[in-house]
Amino acid sequence: MKTYHVAIVGATGAVGTELLRLLEVREFPVASLRLLASERSAGRTLPFRGQSLVVERLDANAFENVDIAFFSAGASRSRDFAPLAVRSGALVIDNSSAFRMDPAVPLVVPEINPEDICLHKGIIANPNCSTIILLMALAPLRKLAPIRRVVVSTYQAASGAGAQAMAELIEQTGDVLREKPIVPRVFPYPIAFNLFCHNTKIDETGYNEEERKMIFESRKILHDPHLKVTATCVRVPVVRAHSESVNVEFAPGTRPSLEEARKALEAFPGVALVDNREANHFPMPIEASGRDEVLVGRLRYDLSNENAIDLFVSGDQILKGAALNALQIAEWWIKEGSQHA
Amino acid sequence: MKTYHVAIVGATGAVGTELLRLLEVREFPVASLRLLASERSAGRTLPFRGQSLVVERLDANAFENVDIAFFSAGASRSRDFAPLAVRSGALVIDNSSAFRMDPAVPLVVPEINPEDICLHKGIIANPNCSTIILLMALAPLRKLAPIRRVVVSTYQAASGAGAQAMAELIEQTGDVLREKPIVPRVFPYPIAFNLFCHNTKIDETGYNEEERKMIFESRKILHDPHLKVTATCVRVPVVRAHSESVNVEFAPGTRPSLEEARKALEAFPGVALVDNREANHFPMPIEASGRDEVLVGRLRYDLSNENAIDLFVSGDQILKGAALNALQIAEWWIKEGSQHA
Repeated sequence: MKTYHVAIVGATGAVGTELLRLLEVREFPVASLRLLASERSAGRTLPFRGQSLVVERLDANAFENVDIAFFSAGASRSRDFAPLAVRSGALVIDNSSAFRMDPAVPLVVPEINPEDICLHKGIIANPNCSTIILLMALAPLRKLAPIRRVVVSTYQAASGAGAQAMAELIEQTGDVLREKPIVPRVFPYPIAFNLFCHNTKIDETGYNEEERKMIFESRKILHDPHLKVTATCVRVPVVRAHSESVNVEFAPGTRPSLEEARKALEAFPGVALVDNREANHFPMPIEASGRDEVLVGRLRYDLSNENAIDLFVSGDQILKGAALNALQIAEWWIKEGSQHA
Repeated sequence: MKTYHVAIVGATGAVGTELLRLLEVREFPVASLRLLASERSAGRTLPFRGQSLVVERLDANAFENVDIAFFSAGASRSRDFAPLAVRSGALVIDNSSAFRMDPAVPLVVPEINPEDICLHKGIIANPNCSTIILLMALAPLRKLAPIRRVVVSTYQAASGAGAQAMAELIEQTGDVLREKPIVPRVFPYPIAFNLFCHNTKIDETGYNEEERKMIFESRKILHDPHLKVTATCVRVPVVRAHSESVNVEFAPGTRPSLEEARKALEAFPGVALVDNREANHFPMPIEASGRDEVLVGRLRYDLSNENAIDLFVSGDQILKGAALNALQIAEWWIKEGSQHA
């Protein structure tokens, strides 16, 4: 079997460490693995297949002989170094927002638009986490009927803001319980027992950056430039799974039955239906955490619109929202895509 | 000045104790105060105006000489005892769901439909907390243009399930941080670092009871039987303020400007506008907690619908969501309504 020289940029972050773990447990055909990070983290060691790998400093020469480079170190690091990696001959799978809306860069959820992988020119973008989790619920429904408009409100975990944000949630919550004064460091506002508008810039339309990602990345991934989406992205005191309350409006007269919708969701790879009305058991972040599948449920006909269905979704932000999706892109590429290259 | 003999049923609960505090700080004209609760709480003492009042057991004779009885002890207690209180000559202000949808019982938010107070036949119902908080944001906008449809997703605090639920959130969170095993008691699922569908019965439509309250109580309070509402009610690990992500659709061609909407919200009694895009500062439960006003902000034109506006609301569930609204009903009645009696 062919094996690959792999690099992880941002190896010590929340997504990087999860990628490292997934490369091992999913038995990715790794010939060699290079862990790259900032100066600050260089020299640390991380375990991989029973060995200790030393984290190296990211620099322009780091991608020599690398076949596949996973980037998860922020947009500016990707903008600076991904083109260098491509020039060295690596396939870049970029978890940042740097290239997602670049028309020359495929933006891929492998269960939804894997064929776009073949169009890459060296970089494949991994979508925003909330967008991936939303689309995993929408894609199966979209096979049943055309979706016209989506109204989504999110309940987003601390993990989306990185490992330090997760630590802040835990530590700050302990401080609040001990009645110690708190000073937010990672988030702009207290996250313990609180929630707030997603901590990204608000533009002149009033939408924050996370909401704009959900609107525009959804259109690109689904190849549906007319899809109407409004999103309200909210950070909640949850550790690592995002949840979303979703109102899906279909083209007039085409709304599928709940039975059809449930069947389509159950049959879709990467989705688990959690929809038990009797037990009031629906998707919850603690049950989505650590799971590969995105949990979808609470399906019901919208009483306010005869063309719409309401549903609720929870998905692990670090897994399907980031590291797992990135790795699935690489898996698809080495299995299917490289034959088209 | 006329003074009143007042009773609180459920005096030891989260809403009851807040009512007691508000009667004092708002200088309600109390001639005498009777604190009523179940057998279990009888004999406890609670402070009022520098005195210690003994909690008495609720029974059929408890309402002798009572002018105004606040009920906040659950729907079955209200069904059993509110008619007895009325027969004794008391005005009942009921915080439970028992009579809210009874056509003979006014359902009142004093800033919105105070005139309905005069139609009472002994009982005035205090609306569901999430409904009050939603309508405080909608009522000012409704003066600008007709509202056709509302899509709302809630972020509801533990307090809505009572004092024991608030204690469970705090204790369970501490246990999770100490890595102690947890066993949910009040809520059906862990609430620490988690969220779930509101813990009320799901009916055959798939909506939970809280969502049905938001749909049907909104129509009654606004006297708008055609108002279309879909709601997704979610419990989050927040102590005592509910938040709501609201998409408001106006009649075609009538959407007000954001400037008009902000002005209308600012001018509305009981609403505080919190809408600072530069600072990403919008309504948050920790800032709504302990405040009489419902915080409204994040106003923006819905990019998916030219007739809609998105906004976000946070309101103290125990104050405007329950005790304060109930007391405001009584205040309005003794100031204005009793002249119509």
